[in-house]
Amino acid sequence: MMARRGALEATPKTPFILGFECAGDVEEVGEGVEGFAVGDKVVAIPEYRAWAELVSVPKRLVYKMPEGMAYTDATAVITNFLVAHILLFELGGISPGKSVIIHSVGGGVGLALTQLCQTVPDVCIFGVASSAKHKQLEGLGITHLLERGTDYVSEVRKVSPEGVDLFLDCLGGEECNRGYSLLKPLGKYIIYGSSNMVTGESKSFFGLARSWWQVDKISPLKLFDDNKGVAGFNLRRLLHLQAASSTINSTVEKVFKLWSEGKIKPVVDSTWALEDISEAMQKMQDRKNVGKIILDPAMEPKPKPATPAKGAKGAKGSDKEDKKKGSEAAKEEAKENNATSSGKEDEQEEVNGEEGAADAKENAS
Amino acid sequence: MMARRGALEATPKTPFILGFECAGDVEEVGEGVEGFAVGDKVVAIPEYRAWAELVSVPKRLVYKMPEGMAYTDATAVITNFLVAHILLFELGGISPGKSVIIHSVGGGVGLALTQLCQTVPDVCIFGVASSAKHKQLEGLGITHLLERGTDYVSEVRKVSPEGVDLFLDCLGGEECNRGYSLLKPLGKYIIYGSSNMVTGESKSFFGLARSWWQVDKISPLKLFDDNKGVAGFNLRRLLHLQAASSTINSTVEKVFKLWSEGKIKPVVDSTWALEDISEAMQKMQDRKNVGKIILDPAMEPKPKPATPAKGAKGAKGSDKEDKKKGSEAAKEEAKENNATSSGKEDEQEEVNGEEGAADAKENAS
Repeated sequence: MMARRGALEATPKTPFILGFECAGDVEEVGEGVEGFAVGDKVVAIPEYRAWAELVSVPKRLVYKMPEGMAYTDATAVITNFLVAHILLFELGGISPGKSVIIHSVGGGVGLALTQLCQTVPDVCIFGVASSAKHKQLEGLGITHLLERGTDYVSEVRKVSPEGVDLFLDCLGGEECNRGYSLLKPLGKYIIYGSSNMVTGESKSFFGLARSWWQVDKISPLKLFDDNKGVAGFNLRRLLHLQAASSTINSTVEKVFKLWSEGKIKPVVDSTWALEDISEAMQKMQDRKNVGKIILDPAMEPKPKPATPAKGAKGAKGSDKEDKKKGSEAAKEEAKENNATSSGKEDEQEEVNGEEGAADAKENAS
Repeated sequence: MMARRGALEATPKTPFILGFECAGDVEEVGEGVEGFAVGDKVVAIPEYRAWAELVSVPKRLVYKMPEGMAYTDATAVITNFLVAHILLFELGGISPGKSVIIHSVGGGVGLALTQLCQTVPDVCIFGVASSAKHKQLEGLGITHLLERGTDYVSEVRKVSPEGVDLFLDCLGGEECNRGYSLLKPLGKYIIYGSSNMVTGESKSFFGLARSWWQVDKISPLKLFDDNKGVAGFNLRRLLHLQAASSTINSTVEKVFKLWSEGKIKPVVDSTWALEDISEAMQKMQDRKNVGKIILDPAMEPKPKPATPAKGAKGAKGSDKEDKKKGSEAAKEEAKENNATSSGKEDEQEEVNGEEGAADAKENAS
């Protein structure tokens, strides 16, 4: 087996990390695996180890890329839109005229949610992000931008006195009680795992902050009285422990169809050479990115100072030249979405290796 | 104001009673109320007091009946299908290929759920009912009939090892933990108020049985780990305290459209003269009915023995003659659905007065 494209190795530190995507060509097909052939362009969501030259992935986690999709796009689309689609349509029951609050709207899933909401008529989107990111988020279709950390509840009530239909909480945050109270009757509160899971900050899921939903419990009787629902969504467990293949497969199909129809497009923050991964990760940790950070094995690294700086100041992958079509496409996306990096924010995206060869070797489905 | 049709007065004993429907003609329209005219055929869902000659109902709880719908049908359709439609489509996210467990499948909402499930391709219906009712429930499209009170969990696992997508629990029952455990990832457990609410039996919602969801609480973290959701649905509160008009209105429209297309039809257990209400209620309390029990003011009462019997033995409203078209239609429905009464079961339906004149007098929406 040979790697066709570049490689990157890294080990995630926490067990719940989303977005371990890779895209590439099938190098070898496991015994008895049908539906894939060597050379197929695929995107995969392995459980860790995506950042390698060769990735061995169970068939059920490998998806053929649609015609015309770049590897970069595939890696930027697959998890974010898979999560977003399940949240909105499978769990959230979004429909015309409904309203939704999206936490971390500047993150990869947040931006995917924003795009998918716009495929449904008259959905009112309240997007929560730090004020520093608001300018970058203008023009993306977010109906009302709210400032994270402020009392946005009263702001929402001003616009929609009855509250909202759907609250999508990827923070497991400190404001969940207020969020639940904002739900209309028949409203749904969904806690999902996405950001805050890499850096282990104090705000994070496994951090020190003890948010209500880690500590408090919900009375079904209260749900009954309130006409409300609470659900959890955890993609990694779904993919790797619970193996809900049919829903995943049909959702990937729907997402790719939307992409083919031009109704969604990946939002890439910036593209980085492999050698610059520390800067790229620092940018994520500083929550400065809007959209996906892509690692491109074919990029030239940035010139380093004699003593390597620890910080990520001035890191602008998009100023650099790159050599590959995929990266160019990614840049165009980034530009279209005004997705240059600035400010400090609570969103982040996982670094993901692109174009590692996905080797559909096992048949664990 | 004059009553056009017969009347019946009764007072519900518990505060959460569904199914207080009435159908009739608009006698008077409140000041400033638009969209209704005297003489309109309407069905209404007032908060109590439906069993009266004249019912004053806020506009938002009054719905014009579709062309060709009998009063009897309207009262038998409105609440059952409203509840069932919201449960399946608004909250449950039912879609082709999914599976659902319906508790009290022989009840009014249960039968409505069964019919609505069949408007979606390839939905697998597990229906729970006492064995005495199974024969009556055959041929209605329930994929697997399960016996209430038995360990049906293992039966479900035999058919569907992964579990089910949706669990609809109107019992607030003692088996909820098992029900939750039966959910597939992304599955939803919905507790709703319907039966068990009139008679105040020990099994009832407000009875002595302390079911898990009245006592226990759910950890959102567990929902997150399990990829599951829990929701409550309480129509009376929704209608009268929370006034979610837009969802209710659009759902009533959808239900009437399905009725007009012949895709759903009301299931009437039996029709009773007003004078026989005690027998009718006894039948409900004994859980012997399958489908709706209708009170028809125009029916002749059954000949009474010298000393009125307290029980409901031999009560067969459908053997009697009646005088009105509505009642005939109801009987036809009852016959089509093989809905004669026998056996003992846990389902029940609320008695509802039919053809009380609905007077859209107030404008409280």
